[in-house]
Amino acid sequence: MSIPQKLQSLGISLPPVATPAAAYVMFVRSGNTLYISGHIAKKDGKPWVGQLGRDMTTEQGREAARAVAIDLMATLNAACDGQLDRVTRIVKLVSLVNSTPDFTEHHLVTNGCSELLGEVFGDAGRHARSAFGVAQLPLGSCVEIEMIAEVR
Amino acid sequence: MSIPQKLQSLGISLPPVATPAAAYVMFVRSGNTLYISGHIAKKDGKPWVGQLGRDMTTEQGREAARAVAIDLMATLNAACDGQLDRVTRIVKLVSLVNSTPDFTEHHLVTNGCSELLGEVFGDAGRHARSAFGVAQLPLGSCVEIEMIAEVR
Amino acid sequence: MSIPQKLQSLGISLPPVATPAAAYVMFVRSGNTLYISGHIAKKDGKPWVGQLGRDMTTEQGREAARAVAIDLMATLNAACDGQLDRVTRIVKLVSLVNSTPDFTEHHLVTNGCSELLGEVFGDAGRHARSAFGVAQLPLGSCVEIEMIAEVR
Repeated sequence: MSIPQKLQSLGISLPPVATPAAAYVMFVRSGNTLYISGHIAKKDGKPWVGQLGRDMTTEQGREAARAVAIDLMATLNAACDGQLDRVTRIVKLVSLVNSTPDFTEHHLVTNGCSELLGEVFGDAGRHARSAFGVAQLPLGSCVEIEMIAEVR
Repeated sequence: MSIPQKLQSLGISLPPVATPAAAYVMFVRSGNTLYISGHIAKKDGKPWVGQLGRDMTTEQGREAARAVAIDLMATLNAACDGQLDRVTRIVKLVSLVNSTPDFTEHHLVTNGCSELLGEVFGDAGRHARSAFGVAQLPLGSCVEIEMIAEVR
Repeated sequence: MSIPQKLQSLGISLPPVATPAAAYVMFVRSGNTLYISGHIAKKDGKPWVGQLGRDMTTEQGREAARAVAIDLMATLNAACDGQLDRVTRIVKLVSLVNSTPDFTEHHLVTNGCSELLGEVFGDAGRHARSAFGVAQLPLGSCVEIEMIAEVR
């Protein structure tokens, strides 16, 4: 199956590319490396506000991280001129989880993003990663994830 | 206008390169990619101590982020042997904002850095970015920003 | 002295490569750049739980960061098929220190990792770096460090 077919089989249609909330761009390509800006989780087009350990469960955090994966793929798609099979590797994620000082399941939250990338890209979707808890995120969102990808 | 002329027209003179606060170096080049260490905000040569949401306004945070941009450009200049026109692209920033759990304008604070880079480098200054709130920063500084740049 | 000899002279034997705590891999190579996932500090094979400024001193944090350096070198060794002299440069670290809002010595904690890399790799071990305080880390660990390295 091609990437678009996999997305379709998962019932995922890519949304329009997110617009930057401030003075930056959503991606920059340098050589074969694509640097994608941190994407905050959104729900119904608005920042998905919440904090793990306070008003969100780990499972809800996973859903938010999965939603970020879809937005990241939309940006990736735009960066590849609509040809997602030009992505040769998802290289690395950094996942920032808005969480209380006693929440310690940032890695499980982040799996919501990592697992979907694995489903869609297969072996090319296996990535390095860091995940950790932050005091707060722009616009109060619960998760923010940035990506490095290798493209041709 | 050349980059030095632009800096002059903005009334900016680059300071001496920051010295590492510990056992690392301010930049490493690998291929055409330049990795610049996190630079903390400074005021009058000392760490710019403060926390957004507690004792600093968003506008003051912007000023601190703008000051970091100037220090980052000084390091960039040193890495390019004084030839800033060898910078082909500001690729990515990661901006760490020392902030309380209820502060949500990290993106506006970070604009102080992003906008100055845009003014100085034009299209080559348009970068990817992540910005988020952290519990605390080295030496109590209010903002720390790291950079990846593409150089020739 | 070769890298293995240096390790031996320091009394360090590399442990087995850490296993991912979730849906990711420990490293990805893209061109000559190796991206290594965030490694959390471990003690006796378990997450090294603690928080700087609460129940750990800066010196204990340094020891934890040094332990992370050893685990990072084990992963680096695996990524280079057991030939650590293929590492041409330790390029960058990002160090996340689990700390209270009043702890400001993240850079000294992180030196535990940076200094050991310098001892083992010499000039090739001199790296760029960012270090900062985070609200909490996966599994409650006290330090997490990710690495970018240049390899041949």
